[in-house]
Amino acid sequence: MKVTIIGGAGGMGRWFAVFFKQNSVEVRIVDKSPRTKEIADEMGVQSLKVDILKAMRGEVEIKEDIVDTDVLLVSVPINITGRVIECVGPEMHDGSLLMDITSVKKAPIETMGRFTNEDVEILGTHPLFGPTTKSMRGQTIIFVPLRKGHLYEKIDAMFKKNGAKIEILTAEEHDEIMSVIQGLTHFILLSFGITLKNLDFDVENARKFMSPMYEIIMDFVGRLLHQDPHLYAMIQTNFEMGKIHETFLAVANRLYELVSAGKVDEFIEEMREAKDHYGDTERAVIDSDRVIEEKINQNLFLERKEKEK
Amino acid sequence: MKVTIIGGAGGMGRWFAVFFKQNSVEVRIVDKSPRTKEIADEMGVQSLKVDILKAMRGEVEIKEDIVDTDVLLVSVPINITGRVIECVGPEMHDGSLLMDITSVKKAPIETMGRFTNEDVEILGTHPLFGPTTKSMRGQTIIFVPLRKGHLYEKIDAMFKKNGAKIEILTAEEHDEIMSVIQGLTHFILLSFGITLKNLDFDVENARKFMSPMYEIIMDFVGRLLHQDPHLYAMIQTNFEMGKIHETFLAVANRLYELVSAGKVDEFIEEMREAKDHYGDTERAVIDSDRVIEEKINQNLFLERKEKEK
Repeated sequence: MKVTIIGGAGGMGRWFAVFFKQNSVEVRIVDKSPRTKEIADEMGVQSLKVDILKAMRGEVEIKEDIVDTDVLLVSVPINITGRVIECVGPEMHDGSLLMDITSVKKAPIETMGRFTNEDVEILGTHPLFGPTTKSMRGQTIIFVPLRKGHLYEKIDAMFKKNGAKIEILTAEEHDEIMSVIQGLTHFILLSFGITLKNLDFDVENARKFMSPMYEIIMDFVGRLLHQDPHLYAMIQTNFEMGKIHETFLAVANRLYELVSAGKVDEFIEEMREAKDHYGDTERAVIDSDRVIEEKINQNLFLERKEKEK
Repeated sequence: MKVTIIGGAGGMGRWFAVFFKQNSVEVRIVDKSPRTKEIADEMGVQSLKVDILKAMRGEVEIKEDIVDTDVLLVSVPINITGRVIECVGPEMHDGSLLMDITSVKKAPIETMGRFTNEDVEILGTHPLFGPTTKSMRGQTIIFVPLRKGHLYEKIDAMFKKNGAKIEILTAEEHDEIMSVIQGLTHFILLSFGITLKNLDFDVENARKFMSPMYEIIMDFVGRLLHQDPHLYAMIQTNFEMGKIHETFLAVANRLYELVSAGKVDEFIEEMREAKDHYGDTERAVIDSDRVIEEKINQNLFLERKEKEK
């Protein structure tokens, strides 16, 4: 099998290049980066000289060799995914497969469907992990298959063999669920991080007063801030976040008002109703206890190592 | 050593009763609960028949045996901690130690200082863990010592022997740091939980689409909702949360406006500035990667166990 990755010099592009290579696939990368060949050499994969930006602007044609592939994986920033698909989709060979790994699914699935002929397989995916993840083992990847064939089956089997959990959704289901899971979680953690700055709160100094739960949350805030801000801006602006943001802001405003007015009973009632809606909070305690216990073990281990130095 | 715990039938009271008993201390509990004796018997500790509520209302006098103790630990809800201290403080014997475990420190420290004579040792503490925690090992306990003597040294040594990390702060430092670490984190997670309800979001169904980081955060939300809502209301209303809430709300409102207006550059700039302020985001990535990796291992382990059934 031959896989060609557009955006193959980027974070996730490289991740999948290495992954496919480890799975005995012939990998070729295409990227606007001037370091593309160097990066390809480091990974031991091939690189193609295609000026994808010029091709998108219609200044050069998509060269035959970019679509001379079994799988074409589009791994470019979310805001240009659509234009890349419009550019390469019509050139794809019958029986090949076009896939993307964008965090939103409605728009790219619609574009992939419209700009390819019906003998091209189409698989929208959303890997629920980032480029620092060590392996596919235990990671969830959402599949939004539009046209399935033998290449779909191959990809599906390969991902599963590597320990991925594959979940099938429609593009609409995906975007509705993910706008809460990812969109709202990011929104909250980023707001937290910016608030720490606006309060001029000294995170490093405060660490020793954080019990493991707070430390884990603080690390998640730092984790998001460390990563590509453009990606997070794109997720916020590409999902339909309006209603979700507004609901959160209304809740936070109400809690603020209840607290400042000392309305303890109403505050408690809000928590009770949220608990009833949430469902199995006892399991949440048990599962988070395990994570917290492990964080404690890790801290003790790191302290011992520090002392041994 | 003899330790008497007021509120010894409650969650944290029982936790410390068991802890002290395991450390060969003679433990006695006092509680308004009608099940106090039963609970004491279960734990293998003594119970005292003192109607603490009546005593607080001045209807009965604090009996001699409640203060016939080395250490008097006040482990009652935060909103009555002050009144309990006012009631028992003046009766305490010279050379004994009065301590509390309230999440706020300014008010109880001030009250303990005012309502005891100067030969009574005073130790404000804030254990950064809840009653579901298995042991003191690796847990942080903040100490706000006001009057230290030999009992302080004993408690300090015992907690450290059990693996606790003791951090010393003034009451003012404690409340300032904790209003962000605990107060703001709770505020954000509870707002998240109530938002899930208001959006009628199906948490259980969405779990399989959560990568480990989102699962951990969702478990933390459930964890908070599962616990005593009164405690969380008390933490919000007893810290000085006004400025912190207002700063957070202003940030979340600004992000909402930036996203809805598609102002990607400003959004990115906010993230960049927050990253610079935060400090070592790379370490946050490394540390959170470890937690995430462990969550994956736990999930795989639980799945295997599930299959074996």
